[in-house]
Amino acid sequence: MRASRSSPLISDLPDIAADVVARVREKSPRVHCLTNTVAQNFTANVLLAAGAVPSMTVAPDEIADFVARADALLINLGTFDRERREAAEIAAEEAIEEQRPWVLDPVFVDRSQVRCSFAAKLMARMPRLVRLNGAEFTALANAETSEDALKRYALDRLCTVALTGATDSITDGARVVAIENGDPLMSRVTALGCAGTALVTACLAVEVDPWLATVAGLLVFAVAGECASVPAGGPGSFAVELLDALANVDRETLRARARLR
Amino acid sequence: MRASRSSPLISDLPDIAADVVARVREKSPRVHCLTNTVAQNFTANVLLAAGAVPSMTVAPDEIADFVARADALLINLGTFDRERREAAEIAAEEAIEEQRPWVLDPVFVDRSQVRCSFAAKLMARMPRLVRLNGAEFTALANAETSEDALKRYALDRLCTVALTGATDSITDGARVVAIENGDPLMSRVTALGCAGTALVTACLAVEVDPWLATVAGLLVFAVAGECASVPAGGPGSFAVELLDALANVDRETLRARARLR
Amino acid sequence: MRASRSSPLISDLPDIAADVVARVREKSPRVHCLTNTVAQNFTANVLLAAGAVPSMTVAPDEIADFVARADALLINLGTFDRERREAAEIAAEEAIEEQRPWVLDPVFVDRSQVRCSFAAKLMARMPRLVRLNGAEFTALANAETSEDALKRYALDRLCTVALTGATDSITDGARVVAIENGDPLMSRVTALGCAGTALVTACLAVEVDPWLATVAGLLVFAVAGECASVPAGGPGSFAVELLDALANVDRETLRARARLR
Repeated sequence: MRASRSSPLISDLPDIAADVVARVREKSPRVHCLTNTVAQNFTANVLLAAGAVPSMTVAPDEIADFVARADALLINLGTFDRERREAAEIAAEEAIEEQRPWVLDPVFVDRSQVRCSFAAKLMARMPRLVRLNGAEFTALANAETSEDALKRYALDRLCTVALTGATDSITDGARVVAIENGDPLMSRVTALGCAGTALVTACLAVEVDPWLATVAGLLVFAVAGECASVPAGGPGSFAVELLDALANVDRETLRARARLR
Repeated sequence: MRASRSSPLISDLPDIAADVVARVREKSPRVHCLTNTVAQNFTANVLLAAGAVPSMTVAPDEIADFVARADALLINLGTFDRERREAAEIAAEEAIEEQRPWVLDPVFVDRSQVRCSFAAKLMARMPRLVRLNGAEFTALANAETSEDALKRYALDRLCTVALTGATDSITDGARVVAIENGDPLMSRVTALGCAGTALVTACLAVEVDPWLATVAGLLVFAVAGECASVPAGGPGSFAVELLDALANVDRETLRARARLR
Repeated sequence: MRASRSSPLISDLPDIAADVVARVREKSPRVHCLTNTVAQNFTANVLLAAGAVPSMTVAPDEIADFVARADALLINLGTFDRERREAAEIAAEEAIEEQRPWVLDPVFVDRSQVRCSFAAKLMARMPRLVRLNGAEFTALANAETSEDALKRYALDRLCTVALTGATDSITDGARVVAIENGDPLMSRVTALGCAGTALVTACLAVEVDPWLATVAGLLVFAVAGECASVPAGGPGSFAVELLDALANVDRETLRARARLR
């Protein structure tokens, strides 16, 4: 297996992503997703299309059992009710205890103070990755978005940070890469970002270097989005084609389409 | 902007609908939807396809923040748990205080007395529009469905009433129009009516006359349904095509297909 | 109507399934589904595609009203929160009192002891059918999966048992049949099994013999899956095609494709 914390050439990243995808398909990692009700179905379908096995329970008295039997955990804060909040704290603690990689997707922390405080508290439980957009980063990190601010936050929190948008930036404080793939239709389907983070969580289950796993997952997702946009006639068919593309994406496509810097 | 409470000719309505659609695409209004878990994903996708921006949280302690930052609010009573009920009262009150237009979709009030009483209480918070089918109107208004009964209810409650079914009737007490567009496949996809009401809510965010906004939203939805039925091979592909059609529907199609009386 | 508890020839089963499908389309039975939030939307769409009418509320204070007005009830234990647990007990009791057939889908009882105990308690409320996979059967019945063990469990509990997987086995203790239809893509779409059980529940509403109803529903679902796999390019388009296939499946297709033993 690839050594942790290597600094591969950018030109190697598409092949590394293809390797990670192959391992997800081969090992079928179990990914427990504590996610919002809008995203649950599409998130589960993205994981299944990629070859992973999702579970989605939110009940506080059984979530520890599910996390213990999973290979990785995603906590997403959308449609955040009381039971989910309680479950999130239990799940993150179990993940730490069982040394399962876990990922935080602090959806909409810029829209609600309650949510932002809760996310800040969860950050103390050491997720391997936090994925957010610019407004969410500013709310959570109390800083403008810049490469320096992202790096500093990653170093402070000992985690990888993925800032997603038209371009995705991924850093662990030392290494930084930007992914320029994607398609405008990706912003016209609900929960697409949430589901993409779930795919990254599956990659963390099979790749010990969180930065590489994140680059791999986000690159595959963005390239699959580009492939899906070709036959799509609008956002409805695009979402369907994206699932097909995730199941079919291969090394040649990743090499040909990747736009990284 | 169009003056409120005008009485346009029926033959002008397709163009007005095209104007409203264009404004939704241009202004991308934020629409907060307190809706049932069956409908959430499709509702969000309908809004995104039309160019609006959905948010869906149901947590009582953050819903006021979301409503305050939204341009319009939808409250839908399907799969109605305790937390949603509490959130609905807070959301409606916030909408009134912040003068945001809000819409009530009292799903299944004919099936449960608890739900009907709750809907009646929400009506006191002055929604701009209530959308329901015949059985739901009879339960809520305690009256048979007739044009007169609809008009009376609209005048009493100072709101627009949309009675949807094979034909949609929309009245604010003074003006009445019937939309005869649509397709039988529209009753074979779950939450289609819920999602259509969300589209209307987006129209209310960009058109101050609630009656015109409702006519525009329901006409666009029904015409998109007709367009989607052409390539569809069944209810599965129909739902996908409907999202594509909502993203693509244009003035010419609305003019050519509208059947109003 | 067909006499209860007949022992038809295996070669008659495709025609019986076609009859049951025709009755679902003609009678449009109401099926109340207490199911998990991941499965709700797809489950409702499967029921609508087949011609049934779904309702999905989970609120404990109104679920009895919905069950009383429904023709059959499904209780599925996925994403099992407190409110759903309370509602499940009320719903099962109402189904017994009103003599509505009800079905238990004890999802993931092998993953959580809390869930397994709850499922065992629900079994005392006499579902007409319990549908599960091998691991779930072992957890619930405390026995290895074998034809004998399935038969014994069915006789003990006076219910039909459907063990689903690559091959489905259905027994009521006396009769046993195996369905070998299906497609590998069926395991790549979330909640497909949950939705298939909902289709069976609709069949129980129009066929008094639970074993025949179960065979009919599972056969139709598996054959529709095979039909859907032909045009599908991956799991996304497969799910869409499956809904179309359920709406379109006919007697000739069932006769031609059924593989039973």
